[in-house]
Amino acid sequence: MKIAIAGAGAMGSRFGLMLHQGGNEVLLIDGWADHVQQIKEHGLKADFNGEEVVEKLPVVLQSEVGEEDQVDLIILFTKAMQLEKMLTDIRPLIKEETEVLCLLNGIGHEDIIEKFVPMANIYIGNTMWTAGLEGPGKVKLFGSGSIELQNLGEGKEEQAKALAEKLSESGLHAKFSDNIHYSIYRKACVNGTMNGLCTILDVNMAGLGQTSTAHKMVETIVREFAAVAEAENIHLDIPEVIAHCESCFDPETIGLHYPSMYQDLIKNHRLTEIDYINGAVSRKGKKYGIATPYCDFLTELIHAKEDSLQVK
Amino acid sequence: MKIAIAGAGAMGSRFGLMLHQGGNEVLLIDGWADHVQQIKEHGLKADFNGEEVVEKLPVVLQSEVGEEDQVDLIILFTKAMQLEKMLTDIRPLIKEETEVLCLLNGIGHEDIIEKFVPMANIYIGNTMWTAGLEGPGKVKLFGSGSIELQNLGEGKEEQAKALAEKLSESGLHAKFSDNIHYSIYRKACVNGTMNGLCTILDVNMAGLGQTSTAHKMVETIVREFAAVAEAENIHLDIPEVIAHCESCFDPETIGLHYPSMYQDLIKNHRLTEIDYINGAVSRKGKKYGIATPYCDFLTELIHAKEDSLQVK
Repeated sequence: MKIAIAGAGAMGSRFGLMLHQGGNEVLLIDGWADHVQQIKEHGLKADFNGEEVVEKLPVVLQSEVGEEDQVDLIILFTKAMQLEKMLTDIRPLIKEETEVLCLLNGIGHEDIIEKFVPMANIYIGNTMWTAGLEGPGKVKLFGSGSIELQNLGEGKEEQAKALAEKLSESGLHAKFSDNIHYSIYRKACVNGTMNGLCTILDVNMAGLGQTSTAHKMVETIVREFAAVAEAENIHLDIPEVIAHCESCFDPETIGLHYPSMYQDLIKNHRLTEIDYINGAVSRKGKKYGIATPYCDFLTELIHAKEDSLQVK
Repeated sequence: MKIAIAGAGAMGSRFGLMLHQGGNEVLLIDGWADHVQQIKEHGLKADFNGEEVVEKLPVVLQSEVGEEDQVDLIILFTKAMQLEKMLTDIRPLIKEETEVLCLLNGIGHEDIIEKFVPMANIYIGNTMWTAGLEGPGKVKLFGSGSIELQNLGEGKEEQAKALAEKLSESGLHAKFSDNIHYSIYRKACVNGTMNGLCTILDVNMAGLGQTSTAHKMVETIVREFAAVAEAENIHLDIPEVIAHCESCFDPETIGLHYPSMYQDLIKNHRLTEIDYINGAVSRKGKKYGIATPYCDFLTELIHAKEDSLQVK
């Protein structure tokens, strides 16, 4: 299968590497010139579960994608705020039959993808794989993971199952879900609580869990996510989702980690994905006439923090 | 006049000093043993508009106030969270005729004072004076200020006016207000926006003003204050109050300062007065059935920050 990875950062590189090793013809696409140049010259380097791996993968700058490029599947793996620019740049690659799988964090990406790809060809998913970027051309890939995915196009269940099987052949543990929106909302609740709160309070997840008000804040935010999900006929099990979010507090598992938004903003002074997590719930709330004040305020606080750190 | 200053920190010391210099018999009362000891041994030292001043003022630990002590007026000047403990400790000083003037920051203190003092003897006020504590027994007093005050007891307007006049004799620029709750809410809006937001974002007021979301946050918080004030028949002029709050952003005036809550929590790792500012609006909102989510969330965030800094 010919597969393009649109957004070949840490996670995109993992998927590209594993799909390549699984026998697919992979094309990496990214917007970071240094990263693309390093991969062109020296191949993609990975610390892959402790083993040094170098793979000579085809790679192209997203601005240089042309009509002559052709793939069966595009996997979208940009940061949320880069999605629309990526789709605009790779438009020549999106033919009538090209399937597109979106694995971005956050919610509501289909609203953007629909502008570029017919609904019948869109698949969305959710992944538990992790990856870290060590520098241009170099990633660190540890542990295991899984993918859930579903078709957005009507009557495309068989194609979705076939796609999951294809990804699983490369060890990616993908499976079809008949309720992917539930999984996406459930994961977004984790991001919508841990990311923003840890970032604004300057604590790791265990530290957040030790505060007297964490539970009240997590509960209120999850209830806002659940209210907008309900308007989309997705019924979140609120106590289960709260418990799922709060399981991150455990210092024995992942509690001592700082979530990705903290690393983006506080550590690396990069813009955050808040507009696609709490900010997306705020926008949906406005659309459905549902008040989402905690998501509104948290989004405003994170943007104020971005501004005060002069992040562009 | 015999006047006790209950809470002789920076502001209480300023008032004690000025009232003493104005010919009143002043008794300082405080709970900080080192501070009381220093004043006992060496007098109250002040850098008073650039001049070094030392005044031998009577001072007593609040736990040592006895029935034999007698004053005409008690001026309450504790931190908000220390008010009830102070009133409990100085109960022997509160006789049938003792007048009590509350000049604390924040709103709703009368609910506590009423438990100790008959309404007829309570006066509340609002001051624009400032003061800084340099260390035990030493304060820094610069600039000028004013006081507005009003009687809570019915038919006590004349007494309130006389009290204002008495304070003005010592240069404190006090005047009677027939709408002190308006002034208190208006000042609380400044504290309810600048204090919490600067503290949680780790910025000074000018820095807050430079963020893209400051106006939206200030406006939403002021609207919550105005809604609970309305339930108490106090009609805030919302655009005027918002403009008043946002005048703090100006780097040419006070924008480069960090508000008192920032200094308490971030600089000195002390508990904040949030429960008596945004937290008071949250409690009043619950009582009146008015949603105050920004005040709720900001109060929770500040408490989480206190917890994460292990402030006791």
